[in-house]
Amino acid sequence: MKTKSRFLRAPIEPFAVEADAAASDLLARMERISFQGRNLATARRIWEKMLADDCTIFLGMAGALSAGGLRMIVAHLITHRYVDCLVSTGANLYHDLHETRGRHHYIGSPHEDDKALSAEHIDRVYDTYAREDEFCENDEWIAAFALTLEPRPYTTREFLHKLGEYLWKETGREGILTAAFKANVPIFCPAIADSSIGMGLSQARQRDPRAGQIDVIADITESANVIIRHPRTASVVLGGGTPKNFINQASVQAEFFDDRIGGHRYALQIVTDVPHFGGASGSSLEEARSWGKLATDAEQVTVHADATVALPLLVSALAGSARETLAGRKPMRFDLSGPTMAVNGRPFPQARFEAR
Amino acid sequence: MKTKSRFLRAPIEPFAVEADAAASDLLARMERISFQGRNLATARRIWEKMLADDCTIFLGMAGALSAGGLRMIVAHLITHRYVDCLVSTGANLYHDLHETRGRHHYIGSPHEDDKALSAEHIDRVYDTYAREDEFCENDEWIAAFALTLEPRPYTTREFLHKLGEYLWKETGREGILTAAFKANVPIFCPAIADSSIGMGLSQARQRDPRAGQIDVIADITESANVIIRHPRTASVVLGGGTPKNFINQASVQAEFFDDRIGGHRYALQIVTDVPHFGGASGSSLEEARSWGKLATDAEQVTVHADATVALPLLVSALAGSARETLAGRKPMRFDLSGPTMAVNGRPFPQARFEAR
Amino acid sequence: MKTKSRFLRAPIEPFAVEADAAASDLLARMERISFQGRNLATARRIWEKMLADDCTIFLGMAGALSAGGLRMIVAHLITHRYVDCLVSTGANLYHDLHETRGRHHYIGSPHEDDKALSAEHIDRVYDTYAREDEFCENDEWIAAFALTLEPRPYTTREFLHKLGEYLWKETGREGILTAAFKANVPIFCPAIADSSIGMGLSQARQRDPRAGQIDVIADITESANVIIRHPRTASVVLGGGTPKNFINQASVQAEFFDDRIGGHRYALQIVTDVPHFGGASGSSLEEARSWGKLATDAEQVTVHADATVALPLLVSALAGSARETLAGRKPMRFDLSGPTMAVNGRPFPQARFEAR
Amino acid sequence: MKTKSRFLRAPIEPFAVEADAAASDLLARMERISFQGRNLATARRIWEKMLADDCTIFLGMAGALSAGGLRMIVAHLITHRYVDCLVSTGANLYHDLHETRGRHHYIGSPHEDDKALSAEHIDRVYDTYAREDEFCENDEWIAAFALTLEPRPYTTREFLHKLGEYLWKETGREGILTAAFKANVPIFCPAIADSSIGMGLSQARQRDPRAGQIDVIADITESANVIIRHPRTASVVLGGGTPKNFINQASVQAEFFDDRIGGHRYALQIVTDVPHFGGASGSSLEEARSWGKLATDAEQVTVHADATVALPLLVSALAGSARETLAGRKPMRFDLSGPTMAVNGRPFPQARFEAR
Repeated sequence: MKTKSRFLRAPIEPFAVEADAAASDLLARMERISFQGRNLATARRIWEKMLADDCTIFLGMAGALSAGGLRMIVAHLITHRYVDCLVSTGANLYHDLHETRGRHHYIGSPHEDDKALSAEHIDRVYDTYAREDEFCENDEWIAAFALTLEPRPYTTREFLHKLGEYLWKETGREGILTAAFKANVPIFCPAIADSSIGMGLSQARQRDPRAGQIDVIADITESANVIIRHPRTASVVLGGGTPKNFINQASVQAEFFDDRIGGHRYALQIVTDVPHFGGASGSSLEEARSWGKLATDAEQVTVHADATVALPLLVSALAGSARETLAGRKPMRFDLSGPTMAVNGRPFPQARFEAR
Repeated sequence: MKTKSRFLRAPIEPFAVEADAAASDLLARMERISFQGRNLATARRIWEKMLADDCTIFLGMAGALSAGGLRMIVAHLITHRYVDCLVSTGANLYHDLHETRGRHHYIGSPHEDDKALSAEHIDRVYDTYAREDEFCENDEWIAAFALTLEPRPYTTREFLHKLGEYLWKETGREGILTAAFKANVPIFCPAIADSSIGMGLSQARQRDPRAGQIDVIADITESANVIIRHPRTASVVLGGGTPKNFINQASVQAEFFDDRIGGHRYALQIVTDVPHFGGASGSSLEEARSWGKLATDAEQVTVHADATVALPLLVSALAGSARETLAGRKPMRFDLSGPTMAVNGRPFPQARFEAR
Repeated sequence: MKTKSRFLRAPIEPFAVEADAAASDLLARMERISFQGRNLATARRIWEKMLADDCTIFLGMAGALSAGGLRMIVAHLITHRYVDCLVSTGANLYHDLHETRGRHHYIGSPHEDDKALSAEHIDRVYDTYAREDEFCENDEWIAAFALTLEPRPYTTREFLHKLGEYLWKETGREGILTAAFKANVPIFCPAIADSSIGMGLSQARQRDPRAGQIDVIADITESANVIIRHPRTASVVLGGGTPKNFINQASVQAEFFDDRIGGHRYALQIVTDVPHFGGASGSSLEEARSWGKLATDAEQVTVHADATVALPLLVSALAGSARETLAGRKPMRFDLSGPTMAVNGRPFPQARFEAR
Repeated sequence: MKTKSRFLRAPIEPFAVEADAAASDLLARMERISFQGRNLATARRIWEKMLADDCTIFLGMAGALSAGGLRMIVAHLITHRYVDCLVSTGANLYHDLHETRGRHHYIGSPHEDDKALSAEHIDRVYDTYAREDEFCENDEWIAAFALTLEPRPYTTREFLHKLGEYLWKETGREGILTAAFKANVPIFCPAIADSSIGMGLSQARQRDPRAGQIDVIADITESANVIIRHPRTASVVLGGGTPKNFINQASVQAEFFDDRIGGHRYALQIVTDVPHFGGASGSSLEEARSWGKLATDAEQVTVHADATVALPLLVSALAGSARETLAGRKPMRFDLSGPTMAVNGRPFPQARFEAR
C-alpha cells in the first residue's frame, strides 16, 4: 500500500485542447501544468488578489514594450485601474508618444542589413523599424512643449502628467501618456535622462537655459510618500530595469521613515533575465524578501517569458475574470496637477517625506 | 516631404485588449506586434500552411513536456494528424506511459528541500514531483512487456508501436503512445538508451539475454525512407535536443541517397536555448539552411519561449483556424505493425534506403 | 580536387592545454577557437586597437559588479586610463563607496532562506550578502556629504567628482569613485534617482529643502559635448542597462548638433541578455549601426558571458599585452572641478551643446 | 555595536589585476568574488577533490565542443586521467574524427548568408564552417571501417574503442577518440543514432545488412556496472544533453541493483541552459539530489557559462594545481578490447548487471 506524502497533494492535469478556448479558460487549464505556463496562470490569480485587496498597485515597464506593440495593453491597465502608479523607462513613454502623435513603428526583420537601414535613416529595434527623421521631429516637439512650461524644476511625475495633458489636447488619441493623464495615474521615470525624452529636454535647454529642469530626487520622496500614505502595496513588473528597482526602492525608502511599511504584499514579474548573473533585472522575488522589498509572506510569482507572448494572454484573461472585482475597486484618487501630489484630496508635504 | 522606404511596409498595430478573447483571435492580434509574440503568431500561420500543403510533418519533442502537462496536446496533434511522425526523447514517452498507466506527476515547488524529497523518495523535475517507487514499477512493467516480444532486434519505431498497442490494450487510456498506436503515427526515439525506457529494457535483458534488442541504426534508414518516399516535408520542433537533430538528419541522409530531397519546406521551432553558444538545440533555422536541412526558400520561424506557455495557446488557436484544412488533409497512411514499415500500402525495402 | 572557397580561410586551432598558462597566452589561444571563447579573445584585440587609436573610450557598467568583486578591476581601468569616461548605475557606485568606506560584502549562498536573512537584516544579491544597517549608515553619510555642498543643481558628473574627492580625503582608500577623482575621469550616472545614492540625496533634502539638486538633463548636454569635442570614440559596455544606452545616446545627441560624429569607431560589450526579446541591454551591435550609434565600419564584438568570468581574464591579459600602448597613450585631460567641464584646458560652453 | 551573524563569515575580496597572471592564480583570486566567476573557481577546487579522492570520474560532453576548438582539452583530460569515462554526443566524436583525419573546421561568421554557404556546400555551426564533401567522405570512411568488423552487435563502448584504435593506426594523430583508445578510457555514446557516426553505420548496413549493429541497451548495463564495481563516483558535465542524463542514469540504474551506491559524491557542470524551463540540460544539481543521482552531501557546483570561455581557463589552472595529485592518482584500469569490459583485470558479467 502506498503511503501518502505531504509533498504530493495535487496532480498535474494535462492541458486538454479545446478549439479556440477563451483566454480565461486557457489560463485556468494552465494552472495545473508545470514550469512557466503554470507561473503565468498563477500571475493571473495573484493579480486578481491584488485587485480584490485594498492595495496600491505599481506597474513597472522596461524593455521595448511600446515599440513592440504592447502600449495599448498598458493604456488599458491604466484606464481601467488594474494599476495605480506606473514606473517606466523613458523609451517606453517616448515610443508611446511617437504613436500617439500618429507616427508608426513598422514590422521588420532581425536579419536585415543594418548598413542599408542606416543609409535610409531607419532605426531598428530587433524586428521593428522606425524613421529617424520622425524621432528627431518628436525630440523637437518635446523641446517645444518643455519651453511652454514655467521654468522651474519638475518631478518626472509632474512633467509627465503635463506632457500627457498636452498630448491629449493636441491629439485626442489614446495611449499610455494620455490614458495616465485622463485617469490621474502618476508616472515616474527615474532614468528620464537616459532617453529621447531627456534628449528633447536638453534641446529645450539649448534654446532657454532655464528650461528642462527635472528634479529626479523629489521623485524618490514622492514615490515613497505614495507608500507611506497607504502602506498596502503590490508590484507588477514587466522586464526589470530601473522601474523594477525604483518600485522596490520606494518601499525601502518608505520603511526608512515609517516602520509600518513591511514591503509589497503581492508581487509578480514577467522577465527574461535570470538570477544567476547577479543583476537586478533578473533577481528573484525570494531575494527581494531579504531586503524587505517584499513582505516575507507576500504572494509572488516570477514568469520567465517575453512580455509580448505573456501579456496579451494574461491581460485578455484578466479582463474577463476580474471584471467584477475591478468594478468594485476603490483605488486611491490622485491629484497630479501641481508640484505636490494630493491623494484622496489630501496633499503630500512639500519636498519632504510624509510624517507618520 | 517624406520618401517611402521599401523597409517600411506594414505598421505595428498595438494589441487591443478584448476581455476573454479566443485563442485564435489572440494570435491574430499578435501577428502585428513584435518580438516573440509576433513569432508565435507566425508559427500558427506556418503550421496552417504545412497542413494545407501536401507534406509530411515531423514533430520533435524534447524537454520535460509530458511530465509538465503537455502530453494530451501532443496526443491531440497525433490523433487529428496535425503531425505525421513523432521524434521524441525517451523521457517524454516514459512520463506519458506513467500517466497513461494511471499514475501522476504532482504540482510541486522549485524551492523545496531536495534532501527532504529524497528522504521520501520523491523525484523533482523543477516544480513537479513524482514517486520513485512508481517509476521503478514502470521500469518493471516495461521489462515485462519487452519479455513478451519475440527475441529479435526492433527499431524504436516498431518497438514503440507495439508498446503503444500493449498499453492501449491494458489501459484503454489516451496519451501519446496510445494515440500514436491508434492513429498509426510512427514514433522514433533515437536516444532510447538515455531514458527509463532503456533502463526497463536493460532489466528485461537481465532476465533474458536475448531480450531488449533495439536496432537504432535501422531507425536512421527508416526515417530517411519516410522522406525519400515523399520528399515534401515540414518540421515542428519543441525544445531542441536529439529529436531536432534527428529530424534534420533524416532529411540530410535522404538527400545522400536521392538528390531530389532539398530539405524541409517549412520549419517552426519553439526553443529556449540560444544560438550563440553553438549547441544544436539553440541553433537557428538560418544555419539549418547551410546544411541543406531546410530548403533555402523554406518558410520558417523560431519562437523563443517555454513550450508550456506557447503550446497551449498555439494549438488551441490552430484547432480553431485549421479545422477545415485538417478535415481535407490526406496524410500518408503508415503500416507500423512489422519490422518493415509500409506507406500507403507499399512497404519500404528491408534494412535499406529506398531506391530513387 | 578540392576547390577553394572564400569562406574557408583560417582553420579552427584546437586549444592546447599548457599548465598555468598566463592570461595573455590563454586569450591568444582562444582567438582560433569558436563561440564566446573566440569573442572574448577578439574583445582583447579590439580594446588594444581602441588604446592605440586616438579615441575617447567610454566604459558602461551595469549589474552588481561592485558588490560582486569587480570594483578594483574598474578602478584599475580608470587609474591606468584604459578608459576615459565612466557611465555607471548608481548601485555600482554605491557598493563601491560601501567598500571604500571599509565595509564589506560577504560570500553567501543563492539558496539561503531569505526570511532568515531578513530577520537578521542581511540583504542578498544572489550569492552575496551585506548588512542593512551599514547601508542605512551609508545613506546618511551621503546625505551628510550632500549637505556640505553649496545648494545649487549639480550634474551627476560634478556631484560624483566631488563625492570621490570627499571619499578620498576621508578614507585614502582605492576604489572606483576615488580612482576617478584622482585620475580626473568623469563619471555619469543617468539613473542616479534609481539608487541608494539617490536615496541619500532625498534624505539630505529632508533636512534642507535646497539640498540634493541633481541636474540630469545637463548630463546629456555634457556627455554629448565630450564627443563633439573629440568625435573619435569607443564604447566598452559591461552588462547593458542605462549605461549602455546613455553612451550610445551621447553619440546620437552629438550627431544632432554636429554631423561629423558618425558613431563609435569601436565597440565591445560583455552581456548576458539576448537580442531576441527586443530590450536594449541585449541588443546587438549590428542593430546599433542602424541608429548611427556605431560607425557602419566599426570593429565590434559582443561577448555573451557573465562579467565575473570574462573580465578578470580579459583585463589580466590586456594589462600584459597593452602595457606599451598604454604608456604611449595621450588621453584627453579633463578638469571636473566645476559646474562646467574643461577638456585639455578648454572649457565647455555653459549648459549648451558645443558649436561645431 | 554590531552583532555578528552566522551568515557573514568571509568578505568578498575584490579581484586585483595582475598583468598576465597565470591561470591558477586567476582562479584563486576569483574564489572570493561572486556569481559565475566564483562558481568557476569553485569548480576547480571540486575537481581537485575528485582527483584526490578514490573515485571514478565521468565526463559528459554535449554541444559543439569539438567543432568549436575544445577537443584537445578533452583529449588532455583523457590522456592524463583527469577523467575515467567519457559520455559524449555522437557529433563531438564525429567532429573529433574529422580533425584527427586531417580535415578542418574553419573560422566563420554567425552573420554570413546561409544561401551563399549552401551554394558552396559549406555547413555552418554558429561561427564555424566545414566542408560538406569532407563530411560525406567521413561518413564513407566510417562505413568502410564498420564493414571491417565482425558482424555482431557492439556496444557503443566497444565500437568506439575499436574506432579509436583504427583511427590511431591510420593517422597516428592525437584527438579524443585516439587518446581514449590509448589510455583505455571507455566512451559511451547513448544517442549514436542521432549523429553522423550513426549515418555512417547506416551506410555500412546498406552494403551489408549484417553490418552496423549497435547494442545501446547493453551500454546501460555496462555503464551501471562501472559504478557497481566501484561505487565512489564523480560527474563533470559540459553542456547537458544526453551525456548529462546518461551519467546520472548509470548511478540510478546501479542503485537499482545495489543499494550501496548512493549517487555521485562530487558533481560539477558547466552549462548555458537554465533550470526554470524544466529541461534536463539546465536542471540543477540540487534537483539531482531528489533522484539520488547525487549524494545528498555531495560537493557540487554549477557554472553558467559557455564552455569555450570556461574550460580553457579551468583546465589550464587545474593542469598547474593538480599536477601532483594527478601523479599520485590510481585510477581504475579498463580493458576495452572485447564485448565485455574488464576492470583492473576482472571482467564484467556478460550482458548482465554485476551481482553485489
